[in-house]
Amino acid sequence: MAAAVEQAEKVKGTTYPNPPVGAVILDADGEIAGVGATEPPGGPHAEVLALRRAGERAAGGTAVVTLEPCNHVGRTPPCVDALLAAQIANVVFAVADPNPVAAGGAARLARAGVAVTAGVGADAVSGGPLREWLHKQRTGMPHVTWKFAASVDGRSAAADGTSRWITGEAARADVHRRRAIADAIVVGTGTVFADDPALTARRPDGSLTEHQPLRVVVGMREISPDATVLNDDSRTMVIRTRDPHEVVQALSDRTDVLVEGGPTLAGAFLRAGVIDRILAYVAPILLGGPITAIDDVGVTSIGQAHRWRFDGVHPVGPDVLLSLVRA
Amino acid sequence: MAAAVEQAEKVKGTTYPNPPVGAVILDADGEIAGVGATEPPGGPHAEVLALRRAGERAAGGTAVVTLEPCNHVGRTPPCVDALLAAQIANVVFAVADPNPVAAGGAARLARAGVAVTAGVGADAVSGGPLREWLHKQRTGMPHVTWKFAASVDGRSAAADGTSRWITGEAARADVHRRRAIADAIVVGTGTVFADDPALTARRPDGSLTEHQPLRVVVGMREISPDATVLNDDSRTMVIRTRDPHEVVQALSDRTDVLVEGGPTLAGAFLRAGVIDRILAYVAPILLGGPITAIDDVGVTSIGQAHRWRFDGVHPVGPDVLLSLVRA
Repeated sequence: MAAAVEQAEKVKGTTYPNPPVGAVILDADGEIAGVGATEPPGGPHAEVLALRRAGERAAGGTAVVTLEPCNHVGRTPPCVDALLAAQIANVVFAVADPNPVAAGGAARLARAGVAVTAGVGADAVSGGPLREWLHKQRTGMPHVTWKFAASVDGRSAAADGTSRWITGEAARADVHRRRAIADAIVVGTGTVFADDPALTARRPDGSLTEHQPLRVVVGMREISPDATVLNDDSRTMVIRTRDPHEVVQALSDRTDVLVEGGPTLAGAFLRAGVIDRILAYVAPILLGGPITAIDDVGVTSIGQAHRWRFDGVHPVGPDVLLSLVRA
Repeated sequence: MAAAVEQAEKVKGTTYPNPPVGAVILDADGEIAGVGATEPPGGPHAEVLALRRAGERAAGGTAVVTLEPCNHVGRTPPCVDALLAAQIANVVFAVADPNPVAAGGAARLARAGVAVTAGVGADAVSGGPLREWLHKQRTGMPHVTWKFAASVDGRSAAADGTSRWITGEAARADVHRRRAIADAIVVGTGTVFADDPALTARRPDGSLTEHQPLRVVVGMREISPDATVLNDDSRTMVIRTRDPHEVVQALSDRTDVLVEGGPTLAGAFLRAGVIDRILAYVAPILLGGPITAIDDVGVTSIGQAHRWRFDGVHPVGPDVLLSLVRA
C-alpha cells in the first residue's frame, strides 16, 4: 500500500475531477508486476494502467489500490471490469468510494469471486493523497489549507516588515511543491500591495512548474494593473469581498485551495471557520516585535481558543513543518 | 550506551557538583551484569556502583560509561582503580572528562592493558544527561534554559490574560519533571504579581518532589511578603536588578538554571545573550491577540534575527516540544 500511496502522491493536482489514485499489481508470487496512477481526465485510471503494465502476470495476482475500484462508466470503462478481465484473485484497497455513482466496486468484485480486503492503510490515504478529494466528496466544498511561515515566536516579519527569508530553501521548495498541486492560491489585496508576489509554482531554478494554480486576490481595494499577480504566468481571479464564505463559494468547483494571505485575511478565514488544515513552517529564529503571522482570530479568553490537533510534525531542512487539522 | 544514558538521566539534578553519569557492566559473554548511576556527593560514582552489582562477573567484561572514568581522589577513590581491581577488559565511554583534575582516566586504563573506546554515543550524552554539566565545565557559568508555553501562533495568553491552560497535562508534567532536576528557576517580579506562582516542582497528584529548585525572583519592584513564591516549600532568592548578567553571576555556583519568566524577562535574557537553550511547548490552538510569549528581542530587521537550531522536536501528549540550541 505504501507503494500505491507513493504513486498517488505523484499525480496529486493533475487528475481533477477524478481522485488521485495509486495502484500496484502483484503477481501470484507476490512480486510487483505493475504500478499505475490516475492519468489526467479522459486517460486511464490507476488500476487499468497498472494492469496494462503487469500484462499476463496479473492473472491470479493481487491489486493494491488506494481507493475502492470504480464500478461506473464515466469517460473510461469501470475499473472493476478491467480487474475481472485480468483474472485478479485478490483486491486490497484503503478507502471506500464515497461517491454513490462510482461505488459498489468492492461488492461486485466479491460477487465475482475475488477476495476483497478493505481499509488497509486507510489513515495514510485519507490523510494523504485523498484528503482534499474526500473532503470535497463529503462536503461539496473545496478543502482549504492555510499555510504560513513564522519564527518560533510566531512572527511573520521583523519589526521593519522585512521577511526574506524566515524559512530556509527546503521549506520554500516545499511550498512551491504544494502550490504546484493546488487548484487555487488565495491572498488578500494587502499582500499584493506589500509584497507584489507572483503566486506561481516554481522549481528551485526559478522555472515555472507544468501545473499552475489559479491565483485569487480577495479584498475591496483596487489592485494595480501592473501587479505581478496579473501577469501571464497563470490565470487570476479578483474577488471584491471581505467575506471568506463568498470566496470559498466562488471556488466551489475546486478541490484543493491554499490560503497564503497575511494576518488579516488568515484571521478572517479562521474566524469564518472555513480553514480545514493549517501548515505552519516554523523557523528556528526569534524576531519579537509587532508583526505576527495572525492578528485577531476572534478569541478573547482562553476558553474560546480555536482547538486543533497536530497530525504531523516534520523537519524540513533547518525548519519544522507543523500540520494541524480540526480537533 | 542507551542503558547507561538512561541511568544517567535518572539521577540528573541530584549529583551536584558531580556530573550525572550512568554505567553498565557487561560480563565476558556480553550480558548485563550490573548498572549504576552517580549517587549524591560523597556516595559512590556510577562505575563503582555498577561494578559492585556485577560482582565477580565483571572480570574480563566491559564497562560502558557515559563519561570517561575519573582518575583522581575526591571524596571517593578514582573509578579507574575500581575498574582495574575488578579486572575489566574493555572500557567504552561517550565523552572525555573536560576537568583537567579528573581527566587522564582513559590513558591510565590503556597503559594498564584495558581496551578503551571513546566517543560512543557522544552526541546523545553531551546533548542529554551531561549537557548542563559540560557547559558549566567549559564556561564556568550555569547552563540557562528558557522554557515557554505558547499557542501555535506564539501567544502565551488570550487577550484578557487568561492562560490556564494552553498546554495539556503531559506538557505541564514534563515542565515539573524539568523543575525537579533544575538548580534554580528564574522569574520576573511581573510574573509574581500577575500569577502568584509557587514555582515548585510537583508530581501530577500535586505533592512536592524530593528535590526543589531555588526560586529566583528578578526585578526592581518590591514583592509582597505574602507572595506564594516566598512560602516554605523551597528557598527563594530575590535579586533587585534588571541586568540578566547579574542574575547569572549570582547563580554562578549552579549548573542548571530554568528561566520561566514572562515576555519582558525572557526578552531581556535573550537580548543579553545568556540563554543557552530554548524549550517551546507549542499547543495546537490559536489565540491571536496582543499577548505574545516574547516581546522585544532587540531585532528590527530580518538580518538581525536571533538564529538558533532545532535539536529536537517531540510530541508531548497533544502538544509539541521544540528544543532549540544556539546555531
